Amino acid sequence: MSVLIVGSTALDSIKTPAAENPRLLGGSASHAAVAASYFAPVKLVGVVGEDFPKKYIALYRKHGVDLTGLQVEPGKTFHWSGEYEMNMNYRRTLLTELGVFERFTPHLPAAFKQSPFVLLANIAPALQHHVLDQMSRAKFVMADTMDLWLNIALDDLLRLLRRVDGFALNDSEAHQLTKEDNVFAAMRKIHKLGPKYVIIKKGSHGSILSGPKGFFLCPAYPLRKVVDPTGAGDSFIGGLMGYLSAARGSIDSNLRRAMVHGSVVASFCCEGFGLTRTTRATKADIARRVKELEALTRF
Amino acid sequence: MSVLIVGSTALDSIKTPAAENPRLLGGSASHAAVAASYFAPVKLVGVVGEDFPKKYIALYRKHGVDLTGLQVEPGKTFHWSGEYEMNMNYRRTLLTELGVFERFTPHLPAAFKQSPFVLLANIAPALQHHVLDQMSRAKFVMADTMDLWLNIALDDLLRLLRRVDGFALNDSEAHQLTKEDNVFAAMRKIHKLGPKYVIIKKGSHGSILSGPKGFFLCPAYPLRKVVDPTGAGDSFIGGLMGYLSAARGSIDSNLRRAMVHGSVVASFCCEGFGLTRTTRATKADIARRVKELEALTRF
Repeated sequence: MSVLIVGSTALDSIKTPAAENPRLLGGSASHAAVAASYFAPVKLVGVVGEDFPKKYIALYRKHGVDLTGLQVEPGKTFHWSGEYEMNMNYRRTLLTELGVFERFTPHLPAAFKQSPFVLLANIAPALQHHVLDQMSRAKFVMADTMDLWLNIALDDLLRLLRRVDGFALNDSEAHQLTKEDNVFAAMRKIHKLGPKYVIIKKGSHGSILSGPKGFFLCPAYPLRKVVDPTGAGDSFIGGLMGYLSAARGSIDSNLRRAMVHGSVVASFCCEGFGLTRTTRATKADIARRVKELEALTRF
Repeated sequence: MSVLIVGSTALDSIKTPAAENPRLLGGSASHAAVAASYFAPVKLVGVVGEDFPKKYIALYRKHGVDLTGLQVEPGKTFHWSGEYEMNMNYRRTLLTELGVFERFTPHLPAAFKQSPFVLLANIAPALQHHVLDQMSRAKFVMADTMDLWLNIALDDLLRLLRRVDGFALNDSEAHQLTKEDNVFAAMRKIHKLGPKYVIIKKGSHGSILSGPKGFFLCPAYPLRKVVDPTGAGDSFIGGLMGYLSAARGSIDSNLRRAMVHGSVVASFCCEGFGLTRTTRATKADIARRVKELEALTRF
């Protein structure tokens, strides 16, 4: 089955201690869509301006992404600029130009409204609500978020949590949301806010699932060199949802392997700027790293 | 086979946001010895003062620890006092009274000198050297350390690394030692300093082994509540060495499970102040958590 992905479609200018890269294809939906495309057909919902480079449309198409839901509006594409510190774990936003994103209202094409698998990638919770309002047969809805929405749209986010099956956030955001230092205690509190499945992203330390079958400790693929972690979390959740929507059987029986596959796609994301490395990965590359992760964690 | 453990034997006064506990049994050798005792007979080498409480001698004995190598000297036992911050990941030393530790020279009883398994728990590298100088048939030597020695005894430590089989340190220490942010790249650099096996401890994020068979990503047991993490790293490496010295077969074929067992003993350590919870664990408790970790990481 296909997966519907809504989120930001952006141009990212990314500075790391090693290099500077202007106007790369970025945004939560772009990373998630390309990641998911390795496992299932993807329907993208987003907005870009008239300045959006044709080569990025070509990149989406290369990954078979259905762009019927990509709105092209007069004005400029959302532009984000950020800088990473030496250890790649902390980043600083240098610039945010919303452009056409400021007036974005996601309109779902008719054919999108019955998608069973829905990823509400990181975007304003009000827009995530707006997408859900248009869906009629969602079987499994996953929402991602970021600290910004905890700061400026907490009420919307809390309302959203009562409408989704799964919720992903990173460890510092989980702490911010629950005031709980212990990540396992924080997950318990987040369940009480609504989601049946809670996923905490811990960057290079992997991720944790809490669900009806208890916890799952998902490893991160060991990378000797991280070039640019931007979009790794989006790739993770995108790969996860792509895998899940293509897998037969119950959510519970597929979610662990879905996370591992998402984790592997995220590892490719970190090995290049923007989507440059992710887009060059093959299904065989992904399968190889999943096998490696099995070997790396067996005891 | 038994394991020889040398390290600090101390009284720890520990403050956390929740409570204050004066003069608990502590020190790297105490934690490591009790942890190792669940798997193998332990020979302890350390020093205490005349003020050392009899109840702590009784605790060692309860765990079958051979105290022939525990020197009792005129003066006061090493006393450390520290305070943990809310998230339990950062601690601040309030007080360090070396006492009899200041003039400690470890003398190994004759029966100790042929121990095949040796754990040089966290202690000044010069003393770790002094113990190795007395050993004649060591089969596998593991050294642990702390940031203090990187700061004030780096040359001794670097010389030590050329004499040991395994070396354990935490992620921030690995960064300090190698100036390398990426933990996998750091491990590669540490191999070049001597040790065949490098173990990076990451607290609640687990640990990583790098050895001839590649990496192993060892999980930490998911604790909903951490009471006091003091000694968790010592318990981990102690449990690991205890398991290893009791297991049949090669180091390579046992090290992963040794780490997991060490990790589980460390989880008990974190659930009480000082050694209070560790000492109440049973072999069945440990086996149960090892099984749980298997289930928590399988995919």
